[in-house]
Amino acid sequence: MKISALMTSAGINIGICVLLWSLYSVLRKQPAFVRVYFGRRIAEENRLLREAFILERFVPSTGWIVKALQCTEEELLAAAGLDAVAFNRMLVFSIRIFSLAAILCLFGILPVHYFGRKMHRLEISSEQLHMFTVGNVEVQSRWLWVHSIVLYIISGVACFLLYVEYGHIARLRLLHLKRATLNPGQFTVLVRGIPKTANESCSSDVDDFFTKYHASSYLFHQVVYKAGKVQKIMTGAKKACGMSDPSTDTTLDQRCKAVTYPCCLCGASSDSFQLLPTDEVAKNIDKKECAAAFVFFKTRYGALVASEALQTSNPTKWVTDLAPEPDDVYWSNIWLPYKQLWIRRIATVLGSLVFLVLFVVPVAFIQGLSQLDQLQKKLPFLDGLLKKPYMSQIITGYLPSVILLLFLYTVSPIMILFSTMEGPTSHSERKKSACSKVLHFYIWNVFFVSLASGAVINQLNPSSSTKDIAVRLAHVIPEQTTFFITYVLTSGWASLSSELMQLFGLIYNFIIKYVLRMKEDIAFVPTFPYHTEIPKVMLFGLLGFSCSVLAPLILPFLLVYFFLGYVVYRNQLLNVYRMRYDSGGLYWPIVHNTVIFSLVLTQVICFGVFGLKESPVAAGFTIPPIFFILSFHQYCRTRFLPLFKTFPSQDLIDLDREDQRSGRMEHIHHGLRSAYRQFPDNEDIKLEQILTVGNDEDQDEGCSSGERNGEETCKEQEPRRDLCHSTLKGLPVSRLRDSVRSIALLWTAEKRSGDRALIN
Amino acid sequence: MKISALMTSAGINIGICVLLWSLYSVLRKQPAFVRVYFGRRIAEENRLLREAFILERFVPSTGWIVKALQCTEEELLAAAGLDAVAFNRMLVFSIRIFSLAAILCLFGILPVHYFGRKMHRLEISSEQLHMFTVGNVEVQSRWLWVHSIVLYIISGVACFLLYVEYGHIARLRLLHLKRATLNPGQFTVLVRGIPKTANESCSSDVDDFFTKYHASSYLFHQVVYKAGKVQKIMTGAKKACGMSDPSTDTTLDQRCKAVTYPCCLCGASSDSFQLLPTDEVAKNIDKKECAAAFVFFKTRYGALVASEALQTSNPTKWVTDLAPEPDDVYWSNIWLPYKQLWIRRIATVLGSLVFLVLFVVPVAFIQGLSQLDQLQKKLPFLDGLLKKPYMSQIITGYLPSVILLLFLYTVSPIMILFSTMEGPTSHSERKKSACSKVLHFYIWNVFFVSLASGAVINQLNPSSSTKDIAVRLAHVIPEQTTFFITYVLTSGWASLSSELMQLFGLIYNFIIKYVLRMKEDIAFVPTFPYHTEIPKVMLFGLLGFSCSVLAPLILPFLLVYFFLGYVVYRNQLLNVYRMRYDSGGLYWPIVHNTVIFSLVLTQVICFGVFGLKESPVAAGFTIPPIFFILSFHQYCRTRFLPLFKTFPSQDLIDLDREDQRSGRMEHIHHGLRSAYRQFPDNEDIKLEQILTVGNDEDQDEGCSSGERNGEETCKEQEPRRDLCHSTLKGLPVSRLRDSVRSIALLWTAEKRSGDRALIN
Repeated sequence: MKISALMTSAGINIGICVLLWSLYSVLRKQPAFVRVYFGRRIAEENRLLREAFILERFVPSTGWIVKALQCTEEELLAAAGLDAVAFNRMLVFSIRIFSLAAILCLFGILPVHYFGRKMHRLEISSEQLHMFTVGNVEVQSRWLWVHSIVLYIISGVACFLLYVEYGHIARLRLLHLKRATLNPGQFTVLVRGIPKTANESCSSDVDDFFTKYHASSYLFHQVVYKAGKVQKIMTGAKKACGMSDPSTDTTLDQRCKAVTYPCCLCGASSDSFQLLPTDEVAKNIDKKECAAAFVFFKTRYGALVASEALQTSNPTKWVTDLAPEPDDVYWSNIWLPYKQLWIRRIATVLGSLVFLVLFVVPVAFIQGLSQLDQLQKKLPFLDGLLKKPYMSQIITGYLPSVILLLFLYTVSPIMILFSTMEGPTSHSERKKSACSKVLHFYIWNVFFVSLASGAVINQLNPSSSTKDIAVRLAHVIPEQTTFFITYVLTSGWASLSSELMQLFGLIYNFIIKYVLRMKEDIAFVPTFPYHTEIPKVMLFGLLGFSCSVLAPLILPFLLVYFFLGYVVYRNQLLNVYRMRYDSGGLYWPIVHNTVIFSLVLTQVICFGVFGLKESPVAAGFTIPPIFFILSFHQYCRTRFLPLFKTFPSQDLIDLDREDQRSGRMEHIHHGLRSAYRQFPDNEDIKLEQILTVGNDEDQDEGCSSGERNGEETCKEQEPRRDLCHSTLKGLPVSRLRDSVRSIALLWTAEKRSGDRALIN
Repeated sequence: MKISALMTSAGINIGICVLLWSLYSVLRKQPAFVRVYFGRRIAEENRLLREAFILERFVPSTGWIVKALQCTEEELLAAAGLDAVAFNRMLVFSIRIFSLAAILCLFGILPVHYFGRKMHRLEISSEQLHMFTVGNVEVQSRWLWVHSIVLYIISGVACFLLYVEYGHIARLRLLHLKRATLNPGQFTVLVRGIPKTANESCSSDVDDFFTKYHASSYLFHQVVYKAGKVQKIMTGAKKACGMSDPSTDTTLDQRCKAVTYPCCLCGASSDSFQLLPTDEVAKNIDKKECAAAFVFFKTRYGALVASEALQTSNPTKWVTDLAPEPDDVYWSNIWLPYKQLWIRRIATVLGSLVFLVLFVVPVAFIQGLSQLDQLQKKLPFLDGLLKKPYMSQIITGYLPSVILLLFLYTVSPIMILFSTMEGPTSHSERKKSACSKVLHFYIWNVFFVSLASGAVINQLNPSSSTKDIAVRLAHVIPEQTTFFITYVLTSGWASLSSELMQLFGLIYNFIIKYVLRMKEDIAFVPTFPYHTEIPKVMLFGLLGFSCSVLAPLILPFLLVYFFLGYVVYRNQLLNVYRMRYDSGGLYWPIVHNTVIFSLVLTQVICFGVFGLKESPVAAGFTIPPIFFILSFHQYCRTRFLPLFKTFPSQDLIDLDREDQRSGRMEHIHHGLRSAYRQFPDNEDIKLEQILTVGNDEDQDEGCSSGERNGEETCKEQEPRRDLCHSTLKGLPVSRLRDSVRSIALLWTAEKRSGDRALIN
């Protein structure tokens, strides 16, 4: 690829960027789109909006950039949580290390490359990009020591910065722990794998077990029911409800005889529900539908101890983990049998692997496009098309990465589907698991397969022999740089702009408002898609490290990407996305490991390249840093990683004591009782709320299976009484009454088990 | 290799075995060698020996075999511990699975191989071994389905047996936990990384911390001092001691002024020791030399909770682990700074890797010998030697594995040295770590490098091209079988016999008794070298699985090995070796993982071989078992592995309650006070014991650095007053007195900190 082709590509992208950014700076000032661009602030601050025509609204401006940059870490932490801060630190780390790398490589290494061979020089714009890579350095060159020194500096500084950041995030995590004084998750343990006993109900089993073995700290518990039957009946009945207050249930006939009737309301017409005397119903449901339990403890430390210990001699029974925060609980998965999880995990890994391998096909096709001269030879009928001016430049310089980008849009929804199937109990765990899956996918399919397919295409000429392979492989990495640069331009710059524009949200909002003429949906505020954005940024980091010394021309483009990303992501975190849950910085170890992997891979690639340049000294110098980096990694594992796996008991005990001393503990214990609600149906909830929550739950189930673009777009609780009433119009009154009766019995059963727990 | 060469090798080994076994059955009846062959029983049962001449003593007999076979698992558990039972189950598992494999392969697969090609048949003894391997099956043979079915059966049955054994060992581990009611290790936590504070002594730091954060279960603690200075002074002074009772220390002048004098006794003449008033001495030593502490808890559960929690926000401070049993503590390592451990671990891994790679040289040389025809071509001057009758048969059939065996004798001492450097705090941990190092070494250097070097030697002819490599690799595995069979014969059968004979012990005993005419050493009872024997048996398992289908001729030899091993090891465990410490079956997960690895590797190898036989169906059929085996492995990890990492709290709490109810707890708490002794110098120890223990400690240090043949041969406490007195003869009286005074002050300091702990 020539410099001019690169410039074409860069030009197209810069144009798109400028256009979109200007458009954004205008659109964000339009009241019509305020819900798209300020979703978080509206949802949290309940602002009033005034519509008025001001000319200023239609002039592009840069104020928002200044605002995004001025926001302190404290503000970001308060607005978007610790995960956002970790994401932000990742960008800061990238900017710092690649600024240094760009300075060193552009001024130190680029001249070595350009003047590496004595040859006729063309005008700079028609110079091949190859001229600026290590491919242009002569074999047995004496200048490779420059590369070695630069590599040493970059590795050393990167490790130092990583250490500082890891320590910073760990400190913030501890602070976060201390500040979230009223987090019920800290007092709660999620128990799964409750064994079935013959005599008593599940609830009393839980009670007995924890009273016996954790008597000093056990408070009470709450059983989680299988979402299947019960939830469907409950939801259906709640929709059908004409009753005003659930407390009137007690007036219902408690001794009605066993009647079997089909449950049509819930849509499962073949299912039938038996009306039994209340006690038996309670027991029956309890036995059959009990899947897990939230167990509450008096102190944070008590919960921690109970969650860490192996409870019984069968590790698949009474499995205890610290419970996720109430908003973080993934209710659709929490009742999955613990015994299934291992096989789900294997199936998911298998599925991801198959997907990973099948994706090689489009990637190889794309690489074919970037190796145009090779392709031209194979497919002569394309000759006419490709000989047109600019056509070949666009095809080699731009098309491959756009196609790749489009293919990559399918990855994150599929990976989050896999992660859901895996059976995580919290939203943040699901996202974290999807994050590492997408990351592996990107590293494998974008980085390695691109390299390999480049090598394979080169191989297609029949004159190849065994010896050639090695030499060719050393060529591939610098050659593929052209593809990687265009990838940075399209996938990096352009996707940042589309992120800023919120194209999906904009179109959705437009259709809802102006085409369908529906009422605007206030509650539509997505959470930040860490599982797509972190892998993206990390992939660019990997590209940066591995190309830095070999083809430094990529660095300025990358640096621009990181700067733009810093502004855009901060703006989006502050204005667009909502923090419903927070993993507490658990993404950072993933980031750390990826950077370490990138650094080691860089050294290994350089070892190969220097070896092929027949410079054993330079190749030998790449080995000590590998051991240094791995030792550093091991040190960080012992020094910081435990803090991301559990909580220090000293801090928890101190917190507990402080709360006890100040008398806040009573208040906290009281709050625990209503913290986790599988079926939010307590007495104090009014009809509107019941109706709403019924809808909400329905919607939540749909949410888990069919998420748009991998982001969660679950709606907030919103009254939809009209909708509810309209669905009930066609139903006969007798069915409604039966349904109400059955649901009332279920309520009584549940309340009874809850009361028993409270007494204990 | 021809069948006759194999027979030569087998004949030599059978001869050696019969000879050694008969010799053993005679020697074991000689009173002179009773300490060699019945070390454990003499040490434990203190038997009286009667010497009398009976003719029966000189007739070979088989009674010991019957005795070894009759011993029940209960008896083995009582005599040699859970590790011995796990080792025994490993042999039982091998016998079961390879009996099945031998039946299936010899009757199902061997005929397919032998009649695989239509060709002229020779007499069976001059038939090439190659005729019996998969190499003789025609390309695109229809008979490969036999191989597939046999593979399926073996994999399935192996997994089933593994599951049964894993469950059995896990059950035994829980029983072991419950039975060992008076094990102080269950009540004790080893604390490392105690941070240095400015104001108080280390002992009171420990006290403060645990009183503050574990008040409900904390009992008292005991500080571990750095072995360096203090131990040397103590030991030296104890040797120099003329005093009769340490309780007279109190009469020493408590206010002697600071005097500096060189401490010559301990050999470190440049070191100087300051005599300070007692309090200051106490504080000084305490601050400088405090390295770790044993913290004792009221209940087992309390200790477990404290050991599992992350204590503070710095994971390298206040690191808590369950303490090893008192006999298991590796005192020379326990005071190592916790911060050093990560770098020690990396250094050890690096060292092992380098050793692993360097060892390739002798292995490749050995492989050269087994590929005699290739070698003959390269080195024509050997022609005359090799043409002699039997010479070539001995060289190809016997010499390579003998040389390999001799080289392999260096492995286990080196690996245990690495494991010692790694810094484990217990003997059993050290042995377990050495075990997995040796296992990796065997699998890599004996299995893979043997295969690879066979392939490389084949490659040396210049006509090789790219395509040939693949075809040749498929040949290598069946071809290498001849080497593996001879390896089973020499390293397996012969080394079992030498194990039975205890050649080292016999020679050592002979020299001590008849050459040096020294008094016999009663206490010389080694512990069982699990770290050499488990890898040996597992390697044979790997050979068995991977060769079973491809070259079934190895199976009968292996089966004989496992039978012999079963008899020999049981006999040795019951009579020769002593159980000083027990890891509680922690070797079993290593065994399990290795078998799983072997099974998967077998499938992968078969995939390659079937692929080269151009049978895509048979090759495809090897893939599902891989996933099945890995799923099974994952299931076992969730079902059993947690039991080998921690203890179930339910069982511990039940045990605690039972002890409290029966009033045994008081007794146990009292016992804890004297359980761990770094410097066994309490008031109740008499002079002889002090002298002894001084020697014992010296000897223990020597033991850690220079162990003979990787086995521990630490001696028991034995009075050597004469030796002590003789070393003191040349010393001036003044130095002796000073030394006594300094040691007395140290004692006082230590006692004081101990008393304080008890009061608290």
